Amino acid sequence: MDTELKENQCDIERQTSRKFRSEIPGVVDELVLSCNRDDCFDHVGLEPISSREAIIDLLHRAFRILYPGYFIQKRVDEVNLGYYFGQEVTEFFEILSEQITLAVRHDCIRYEQPCSLCQERGEEAAIDFGKQMHLIRSQLARDIHAARDGDPAAASFDEIIFSYPGLYAITVYRMAHQLFEQGVPLIPRIMTEYAHSRTGIDIHPGARIGDSFFIDHGTGVVVGETTIVGDRVRLYQGVTLGAMSIPREKVKELSDRKRHPTIEDDVVIYAGSTILGGDTVIGARSVIGGNVWLTESVPPDTLVFAKEPELVFKERTR
Amino acid sequence: MDTELKENQCDIERQTSRKFRSEIPGVVDELVLSCNRDDCFDHVGLEPISSREAIIDLLHRAFRILYPGYFIQKRVDEVNLGYYFGQEVTEFFEILSEQITLAVRHDCIRYEQPCSLCQERGEEAAIDFGKQMHLIRSQLARDIHAARDGDPAAASFDEIIFSYPGLYAITVYRMAHQLFEQGVPLIPRIMTEYAHSRTGIDIHPGARIGDSFFIDHGTGVVVGETTIVGDRVRLYQGVTLGAMSIPREKVKELSDRKRHPTIEDDVVIYAGSTILGGDTVIGARSVIGGNVWLTESVPPDTLVFAKEPELVFKERTR
Amino acid sequence: MDTELKENQCDIERQTSRKFRSEIPGVVDELVLSCNRDDCFDHVGLEPISSREAIIDLLHRAFRILYPGYFIQKRVDEVNLGYYFGQEVTEFFEILSEQITLAVRHDCIRYEQPCSLCQERGEEAAIDFGKQMHLIRSQLARDIHAARDGDPAAASFDEIIFSYPGLYAITVYRMAHQLFEQGVPLIPRIMTEYAHSRTGIDIHPGARIGDSFFIDHGTGVVVGETTIVGDRVRLYQGVTLGAMSIPREKVKELSDRKRHPTIEDDVVIYAGSTILGGDTVIGARSVIGGNVWLTESVPPDTLVFAKEPELVFKERTR
Repeated sequence: MDTELKENQCDIERQTSRKFRSEIPGVVDELVLSCNRDDCFDHVGLEPISSREAIIDLLHRAFRILYPGYFIQKRVDEVNLGYYFGQEVTEFFEILSEQITLAVRHDCIRYEQPCSLCQERGEEAAIDFGKQMHLIRSQLARDIHAARDGDPAAASFDEIIFSYPGLYAITVYRMAHQLFEQGVPLIPRIMTEYAHSRTGIDIHPGARIGDSFFIDHGTGVVVGETTIVGDRVRLYQGVTLGAMSIPREKVKELSDRKRHPTIEDDVVIYAGSTILGGDTVIGARSVIGGNVWLTESVPPDTLVFAKEPELVFKERTR
Repeated sequence: MDTELKENQCDIERQTSRKFRSEIPGVVDELVLSCNRDDCFDHVGLEPISSREAIIDLLHRAFRILYPGYFIQKRVDEVNLGYYFGQEVTEFFEILSEQITLAVRHDCIRYEQPCSLCQERGEEAAIDFGKQMHLIRSQLARDIHAARDGDPAAASFDEIIFSYPGLYAITVYRMAHQLFEQGVPLIPRIMTEYAHSRTGIDIHPGARIGDSFFIDHGTGVVVGETTIVGDRVRLYQGVTLGAMSIPREKVKELSDRKRHPTIEDDVVIYAGSTILGGDTVIGARSVIGGNVWLTESVPPDTLVFAKEPELVFKERTR
Repeated sequence: MDTELKENQCDIERQTSRKFRSEIPGVVDELVLSCNRDDCFDHVGLEPISSREAIIDLLHRAFRILYPGYFIQKRVDEVNLGYYFGQEVTEFFEILSEQITLAVRHDCIRYEQPCSLCQERGEEAAIDFGKQMHLIRSQLARDIHAARDGDPAAASFDEIIFSYPGLYAITVYRMAHQLFEQGVPLIPRIMTEYAHSRTGIDIHPGARIGDSFFIDHGTGVVVGETTIVGDRVRLYQGVTLGAMSIPREKVKELSDRKRHPTIEDDVVIYAGSTILGGDTVIGARSVIGGNVWLTESVPPDTLVFAKEPELVFKERTR
């Protein structure tokens, strides 16, 4: 397809009129000049920044390490397993340490700090992450079991690993959260927003989420930065664990405070419900029905339903 | 971009410190060892499994067959049409039969059944699918007309084919449903979840959906596994056709039952409405307004609106 | 991965049974024949149409021009900036003018108009677009500031540019709207629907949206074709600015009318709210709470909340 595209471009190059080509330099100049204006966000003259593309590549590689044998077309067996991991993991950590180095160095320069240690910090952060990776894999196994237990339509573990958006988002979140905890800038958010883009599930890397977490369907789920979620919690599509509305002038001063709710162990929250506020605690084993709007705490072992808005039934005149 | 990436990697390889490189083997060993633990989901030592990537490639190919001339940059005309289809279709079926074979064989081995017939079953299933494909195309033509009739913003059929997420999701669903009906494991769900990822529309391949189906905007739509939808039905964004809440301990025993609603012919369901339960039937020609929550049946020719929750208006002190 | 895929294909080609291969021609013939039926949407025998793939490529290129230095892995500095833009911009406009030409020519032929001027129109439209591009960049800078001001979780401008789905959707919308205003067919909608696919945010290119626009989280947002939005407006996930329900038989006659609401300056609309109708005006500085359903106008400086549906709390028997 690419070569076709190229040929087409050549064609058009030959065909485009003199007038058209004579106009281009003016457009280029305007774009170069306007780059110096205050109102242009550019990244010119600075060290290269982390690459969104490289970070998405890292995520693909991570899936091959976390779920060995699932996301490749070669056969992996006991004999070649060491080589397989050796190569995958080495490449993964080289790219990861490079990207962290770029992110860290970029921050140093933006904030005009000395930067002799950026590469060292990048490498250390990559290794620290690496040492957690088999633990993340174990935690994900518990998430997979939670999906199998929670969804009557789940035909097999394979189906969950290959196709469940909830598991995809949780896998990316668990890695991004580890990096977030290590203080790595920029990269965790690029990771979770990529997962958001693929799944419609928006989990901030700062959220703290326990074991055996299951999100069904998932489109529209939002889990905010300071949310705390216990073990064995189940969420359905369209659930928001969010912040109360903030007056424009207070946005900055509130940014360090706990703004999002706490969900204790074994809670289930059905589709479309919204739970807001940093002091809101949903007690253990509670069940929140669909379309509930909650801004205050609920004790443990509570069922909460919205009284359905009254329905009006009329016969349709045809 | 790839070669750049490579060069960068080489660079970093040279630069990374001895200390960093000395830490990697430990990380690799831990990941290999932990692969033998119970809590690792791996696919090691087994036959290769279907490839998500190959199945996404299949979907792209299917679009070129179902909408001839739309998704290529070459000119297709009456003269070369036979060759065009000949090549596209042959490749499509070879890959499809291979992927079905892998999916079937994988199931055989997991469940320790004999597997001499896997390839034969893959080929038969691919051909059976192929014989349905021109019928699927006709059915999709009716879906396209439904989009044109249902959306005042639709500027042309081309716009619908190129850009409507609803049509994309329905196209993938109609293929996945055919494979689901043929008993093909794994692949149908990978297909519909890919469409879910691209469109925010989550249709289970098991759902049974009639002709002239239209979904507008679509983000957040969920259509569950045992849903039945009649002809000329229109859904808007955020509509859920789902199951009632299920106590954790009953999840498995309910998995064979009809858990999702039946929507009869000519029904319209506006944005954000939720219809739950296997016994819930929305009668023909009924109109369900926005944000309605329904867990019981509605007779034919009914208008159902939610009494809007009372609004509170206050003057804003500035 | 591709070469692997190829090898696998070769393998399978050798392996597939004679019976399988003998069935393929019948399937091909049926697909070719059925292409002549009325109910097949094909694009056979016509000039090539705009390519969705090329337009997505154009969007990637546009991001490199609008946010210089952010979406490449090379270092861009003051010295090479002219060359960088020179090359990027030239290629961008050649592809853009080609795609517009194809879109225009295709419309001409479908509607059987004479078409001598298609290429000229394509080039003119591309240059007209180019002259607006530095203005679009300035406008986007104001959108970025609005994101920084509106979100306590925004760690840096870089994070917003790299990862915020709202900014992605607004960037694509601002380009698509410019092309829409110039009367370019097909391409604007392919652009915004690609952004919809990546972000869950569905903004029709026809909508008119002022400065400093911010969408937080964004999944499920719908902004209809004839919506008007003022300056400094903030939307949260799941907000619909939509049309009232339309009886099937009136869809076409309403397509030229203003069907979507007007949102004045400095309005905030919280998650899940729905505002419908072409005559509905939300007055300046008003705040619309979450889950509000509005089909009539609201004066300036108004707070609107939904009285939350009463909740039922029960102790859960275990």
